[in-house]
Amino acid sequence: MSLVVMKFGGSSVADADRIKNVANRVMARRHRGDKVVVVVSAPGDMTDDLIELAKGVTSDPDAREMDMLLATGEQVSIALLSMAIKNRGMDAVSLTGPQAGIYADWTHTKARITKIRPVAVQRELKKGRIVIVAGFQGLNPGRDIATLGRGGSDLTAVALAAALKADVCEIFTDVKGIYTADPRIVPEARKVDRISYDAMLELAGAGAQVMQARSIEVGKKYEVPIHVRSSFTDENGTMIMREDSSTMRSTKGKKMNDSIRNGGTEEAVVSGVALDRNQAKVTLADVPDRPGVAAEVFGALADGAINVDMIIQSAPREGVNDISFTVSRDDLKKALAILERVRAHLKARSVTSDSAVAKVSIVGVGMRSHPGVAASLFKSLASAGINIDMISTSEIKVACVVKENNAEKAMRIAHKTFTLEKK
Amino acid sequence: MSLVVMKFGGSSVADADRIKNVANRVMARRHRGDKVVVVVSAPGDMTDDLIELAKGVTSDPDAREMDMLLATGEQVSIALLSMAIKNRGMDAVSLTGPQAGIYADWTHTKARITKIRPVAVQRELKKGRIVIVAGFQGLNPGRDIATLGRGGSDLTAVALAAALKADVCEIFTDVKGIYTADPRIVPEARKVDRISYDAMLELAGAGAQVMQARSIEVGKKYEVPIHVRSSFTDENGTMIMREDSSTMRSTKGKKMNDSIRNGGTEEAVVSGVALDRNQAKVTLADVPDRPGVAAEVFGALADGAINVDMIIQSAPREGVNDISFTVSRDDLKKALAILERVRAHLKARSVTSDSAVAKVSIVGVGMRSHPGVAASLFKSLASAGINIDMISTSEIKVACVVKENNAEKAMRIAHKTFTLEKK
Repeated sequence: MSLVVMKFGGSSVADADRIKNVANRVMARRHRGDKVVVVVSAPGDMTDDLIELAKGVTSDPDAREMDMLLATGEQVSIALLSMAIKNRGMDAVSLTGPQAGIYADWTHTKARITKIRPVAVQRELKKGRIVIVAGFQGLNPGRDIATLGRGGSDLTAVALAAALKADVCEIFTDVKGIYTADPRIVPEARKVDRISYDAMLELAGAGAQVMQARSIEVGKKYEVPIHVRSSFTDENGTMIMREDSSTMRSTKGKKMNDSIRNGGTEEAVVSGVALDRNQAKVTLADVPDRPGVAAEVFGALADGAINVDMIIQSAPREGVNDISFTVSRDDLKKALAILERVRAHLKARSVTSDSAVAKVSIVGVGMRSHPGVAASLFKSLASAGINIDMISTSEIKVACVVKENNAEKAMRIAHKTFTLEKK
Repeated sequence: MSLVVMKFGGSSVADADRIKNVANRVMARRHRGDKVVVVVSAPGDMTDDLIELAKGVTSDPDAREMDMLLATGEQVSIALLSMAIKNRGMDAVSLTGPQAGIYADWTHTKARITKIRPVAVQRELKKGRIVIVAGFQGLNPGRDIATLGRGGSDLTAVALAAALKADVCEIFTDVKGIYTADPRIVPEARKVDRISYDAMLELAGAGAQVMQARSIEVGKKYEVPIHVRSSFTDENGTMIMREDSSTMRSTKGKKMNDSIRNGGTEEAVVSGVALDRNQAKVTLADVPDRPGVAAEVFGALADGAINVDMIIQSAPREGVNDISFTVSRDDLKKALAILERVRAHLKARSVTSDSAVAKVSIVGVGMRSHPGVAASLFKSLASAGINIDMISTSEIKVACVVKENNAEKAMRIAHKTFTLEKK
């Protein structure tokens, strides 16, 4: 008997039929004898609808009240799913985030989970019930409802799995798992059976959309095996877990899912290729080459809450050099306004930008022990006539900024270079 | 400075514009220096919509989960109203029923309030905030959300006013107050300035729809002045209060609303006329005239949760008599099924029913000291050729069952008999 946390997103509970499907799926799992905790998001577009309601009342909704409003979405889902299960003859109980013992910090609308005291969840599990927990929400130190922001329901599921020492946290999605690349761009992309937390973190940072980094970080910290799988089929998806499966955590001495166990003990050199189009390149030209300049530029951007990704600095010439870096396109306008002030102050020549760029990344923990991975990528891209604007590397990632119209081609070339289509 | 509890129903918060109107109204009150607690219902049809959602998932929703679901409606209202007020520059805070310290019993979907510990409400009032409380809900002994059933938001408002020792509880409605009769039926009906708890209780029991008896009972018990007034105008409505205004409760020595104070110290003989069409008359004919028969008949109906209103028993003839009584039309079918079993067992002759009846009642605490009120009514109805099927009287009420097609005429005659159109 395992303990499993199953998480279903908003599209899985968007209407009565889908809720019934989720109920059937959850009940089948319980029927196998597993203890089951379910985490659900708000139904379909309900969160967006509630935000619209708030905007009708005020252009600048108070954050505490916004959380009071938004938290109702998940509450609707847990009640509907719980009554659907009970009506089919299995015992279930719904719990709001606060009732489930999920505590959050003061940051309304994007709170962090501070601790989980799953007393009520454990009590209800002991009664043999399926426990349905509202994702995306917790109780803050002021005893107010706080919501957890983007990816909040995944976070609830993984953190709850950690607190309960669950055997696995299953994230049900509209894709079958983690792919070596986006199949819409790289048709020969392949679903991977397993991937390490670190590689998954890099993929998320490189633009893969399936899960947000914060949930994977929690999974890594508490070694929660995360199974990303389809809500439409029963086949296995992708297990996000520790690199070395031989020392893999196995709570209460139970065996992990067999197909995962047999997935091999060593991860491929490269796990996947990711594309991030939300990139813009900014160049500050003829900046004085003296200490403190970089601090001024990036300090000003940080003060404006603008995340800077890749940075390159040209070799100095005649006392000046160029600084180029990437920001997300959403931030570009704001970044340019800040940089114009910085330019004037530093007496730099110009600020220019290019939004027609994209970032292509290869990720894989195997790179650590395989030198020459980056060189292979650069060589393949060069052979295809694709120019690389900027490069950044980490122990398990190589990222290249290229012209946007070359990005998809670059992805396919990278995928082929490392034969990701083959298991 | 007074402390006022203002209650707004679902139609008052049905859309953004109406919520803004409520916000303005509440703020105007706070601006006068009063401490303000607001109780709101779910927006417009939201409760009905949520019930529909539940019915889509299961034909027989679990009561606990139904409450988990329905409680979201008021939570949406309090959040929207609170953010609307804050955006207009006054400080406000929303509290769910549980957060406001409203405790309920175990009866999901129609729970009773067991106690109120308004610690959070008082704390927020002390900060100068307008406190917005979700009506219709409380926390049960299992720390689950329970809803209070029909009229639940009124009940929250009156009970909260009692717990806070508020100077007045204002119930905002789509009518201007309590009328001597339904103006749609009796055009000369007049709004009364004040009415006693007892008379209002009888009116509610006699079919007046404005407020439910349970809220008035709580108001009476804790002597909370209840001001029923229009949500569209500023004029005074009807104050429901103790009969003797000279000893009227006036918290903290503050003066009551002037127009109420000047409303006179003695209530009229008759306060109002009410009509209840939801009536059916049932007759069990030729029942053996022996002890225990009535107990068997009404015991069986009580076991079926059927409320019986008026009862008459004919004089015995040859060892048998007839028993007639009224039930609500909604219960008629169920009542007839039960009575058929009772009839067979008692060997009574027949069970017959008549749904084309209605109950017309006159209510007023002044009747106590004015004998002959009932006689005047009977005489007027007789003069108009209206036959009375059944009669029941209490110290402050006379109710007559008449043919439904005579009911409206009977109302107008009663209204005229006691010159209710004149102040």
